[in-house]
Amino acid sequence: MKEIVAIIRPNKMAQTKEVLTALGFPAMTAHRVLGRGRQKAIIGEVSFDIQKPELLNEEGTMRYIPKRLISLVVPDEDAKLAVEAIMRVNQTGQIGDGKLFVCPVEEAVRVRTKERGEDAII
Amino acid sequence: MKEIVAIIRPNKMAQTKEVLTALGFPAMTAHRVLGRGRQKAIIGEVSFDIQKPELLNEEGTMRYIPKRLISLVVPDEDAKLAVEAIMRVNQTGQIGDGKLFVCPVEEAVRVRTKERGEDAII
Amino acid sequence: MKEIVAIIRPNKMAQTKEVLTALGFPAMTAHRVLGRGRQKAIIGEVSFDIQKPELLNEEGTMRYIPKRLISLVVPDEDAKLAVEAIMRVNQTGQIGDGKLFVCPVEEAVRVRTKERGEDAII
Repeated sequence: MKEIVAIIRPNKMAQTKEVLTALGFPAMTAHRVLGRGRQKAIIGEVSFDIQKPELLNEEGTMRYIPKRLISLVVPDEDAKLAVEAIMRVNQTGQIGDGKLFVCPVEEAVRVRTKERGEDAII
Repeated sequence: MKEIVAIIRPNKMAQTKEVLTALGFPAMTAHRVLGRGRQKAIIGEVSFDIQKPELLNEEGTMRYIPKRLISLVVPDEDAKLAVEAIMRVNQTGQIGDGKLFVCPVEEAVRVRTKERGEDAII
Repeated sequence: MKEIVAIIRPNKMAQTKEVLTALGFPAMTAHRVLGRGRQKAIIGEVSFDIQKPELLNEEGTMRYIPKRLISLVVPDEDAKLAVEAIMRVNQTGQIGDGKLFVCPVEEAVRVRTKERGEDAII
């Protein structure tokens, strides 16, 4: 199994979730995170969630951007599809489109049924 | 070493923490996350933490459920025990009991002492 | 590629970020988490972010400490440098200095450009 971790724009969450559900991946976890890519600072994109002075540098520009991190665990053979789908929905061509990572998962358990492995995630 | 990631009900946090501490796993990290399993929507379970309209779909039902994600890193030989313990505490038989994942961890470091590997996590 | 996960004190975030940026690792994700190490309880360090009674035990002492979790993905050969740098900045010798973990990452994708692998993270 693979964990797909996607760090995306908050305003792409709904569409990302919809396409993943449509493809048969309804289960996921979402975190609010602050992210920063190579660009280091983007101004103007963000107007909410930023009430912490430590997020602003001396010039008042953003240091970190609110992002959503979504995580889903899929069978090995579905990892490519999930990555392509998330990429398709999130690619605007603008800086800040985000990143995806694929990580190994050795075991999964559905607590309610004690199902294990791919049975736990499908 | 293995990372045990458990996505559980918020009201199971205290009990989960207690059993893990009692078993000799006091160190862990907890995140607030929004999760969704195969069921896609549960109504009535959640009455807090939901002030964001994007969490409601057109019918006003929940799209995502507040969950707690806990993460702990244990020696390989303790992974099974930690998983079983978390499962035991969290299994109610109801939808929403959550999931556990086991992922590989290659190195651990305790910053204060520079201990590495299993010495850093025990 | 490796994911470096560091659980550090909130007041070490700025310095940690600065040193990582200076070393050529500007991209990272930051989460607010609650953590607990072997010490189980520290009193006095934390005065904010704690408005939840479930964080206090019967004696009113802290059960969990607000921490920052930062995550960055680096090429294999840079993992050691990133770990050493984070450790250097965060080591005060006091309990609560935090932990680092190194985990395998199999694939990375920059959504905007579709670059993959190390090209996506450098």
